[in-house]
Amino acid sequence: MGRILTYPKRPCNTVNRYKHRATYDLTAIHSIINSSQVLHVSFSPGPSDPFPAILPMIGQMGSFDYPSASVDEPLDCYLHGYVSSRIMNLARDAEGDGLPICVAASRVDGLILSLTPNSHSYNYRSAILHGYAKLVTDEAEKLWAMELITNSVLSDRWSHSRVPPDRAEISSTVILKVKVVDGSGKIRDGGVSDEKKDKTNDEVTSRVWTGVVPVWETFGNPVPSPENKVNKVPDHITRFIADKNDQNQRYAQEAIYSTLPLEEQH
Amino acid sequence: MGRILTYPKRPCNTVNRYKHRATYDLTAIHSIINSSQVLHVSFSPGPSDPFPAILPMIGQMGSFDYPSASVDEPLDCYLHGYVSSRIMNLARDAEGDGLPICVAASRVDGLILSLTPNSHSYNYRSAILHGYAKLVTDEAEKLWAMELITNSVLSDRWSHSRVPPDRAEISSTVILKVKVVDGSGKIRDGGVSDEKKDKTNDEVTSRVWTGVVPVWETFGNPVPSPENKVNKVPDHITRFIADKNDQNQRYAQEAIYSTLPLEEQH
Repeated sequence: MGRILTYPKRPCNTVNRYKHRATYDLTAIHSIINSSQVLHVSFSPGPSDPFPAILPMIGQMGSFDYPSASVDEPLDCYLHGYVSSRIMNLARDAEGDGLPICVAASRVDGLILSLTPNSHSYNYRSAILHGYAKLVTDEAEKLWAMELITNSVLSDRWSHSRVPPDRAEISSTVILKVKVVDGSGKIRDGGVSDEKKDKTNDEVTSRVWTGVVPVWETFGNPVPSPENKVNKVPDHITRFIADKNDQNQRYAQEAIYSTLPLEEQH
Repeated sequence: MGRILTYPKRPCNTVNRYKHRATYDLTAIHSIINSSQVLHVSFSPGPSDPFPAILPMIGQMGSFDYPSASVDEPLDCYLHGYVSSRIMNLARDAEGDGLPICVAASRVDGLILSLTPNSHSYNYRSAILHGYAKLVTDEAEKLWAMELITNSVLSDRWSHSRVPPDRAEISSTVILKVKVVDGSGKIRDGGVSDEKKDKTNDEVTSRVWTGVVPVWETFGNPVPSPENKVNKVPDHITRFIADKNDQNQRYAQEAIYSTLPLEEQH
């Protein structure tokens, strides 16, 4: 039996609030990143600007050196997004290890409707990674990452599209590789959790409905483009939609019934 | 007819890529922020840490001084979240205007499945704000912001729960008020957009399906908690769920048929 790998706890990634919800487990953190359609990537634009920047980007965990590595192993984070020239230039010019960035992913799985506003919460999964970003310059690695990221948008899409990319497409594509330094995740599941003073107050419990509204992302029926010439929607698309809808809805529903630890949950 | 207010373009919020998708319109930006269940908030933890930090938080635009202000007017951003003591302490100790932060919101409205990986894209809406965060210390403003934020999770929830919060609940709640300095948004809608070299290649068009998979967030049937004593799910909850599901699905579907500008869309 293998051991479970976890990210090291350092001051910048250690969860101090609701510690029982924290995870440093690579599998949990990598899975949240990989199942998120959009990642939020933060970097410091430099001394002339006081504000950190955030870009929405598409990305995926992977290992070019060990492509068969699974989510429970050390992986790099590959990013492709609406990459402003700013983050590209900063990563290209960064000395040493690369541009220090933070990658975040969050999803809401349910609304927790409690007796009091203070006990309201979400069921959610969130993860962050800290690491150093560099541009991928090796062409084989870039192609490999383009395939990894395209297939993260829709499983198996790469081989069902016009590949390989031509020279102009490869050179216009920018992929950032993030060497991960640390990471952490936070997961809240379960049901409503109110304080005793309210739960024993009949006036309150007789009029305030409590419960959970599950929330999930739905993928609708594919709409062919006016120029599409393939009559039947291919299996890799219908299967992806069916699988995702099933997984997403099931997770949100099952999270409600997750066994609660004894301590406070919100 | 009033004029449309826009955020000033400064180097840190000016969109340089796909400019035709950019917006500086207050209404568009505030609406994306307000309709997002989770905001990603970035700040710099200080000189000892090279990495920016990102926290998922709940927030809403509003004006305490002019509560009737609508989304097309200048507003502050109020944040309440899983506020680590770090951001609270930084905001509390910040000199001058407050802690410089970036607030981001993004949602995916559809998968754009094109002939080539490079032409794949999302329909999406994203927005960022830059501003200075301070803790709200005035008790009336804090209570007002708590109501604003609770109702952003589920419309009208505040008045249907046990309010007002007691002294301990108010003092344990931390609300950040962000004075917004600038902002920008980016919206991609429409359908597939491929290059001529592929669209005129029969070998490619005969085997690659192209089109859009609409994506939206679904709110499921409310699940009462084991301790709930109110038999019927109240109208403010069923109405919220029905409205959100209708709006979300309709937006994702209609975005596909949005009239395309002539220039390239991905």
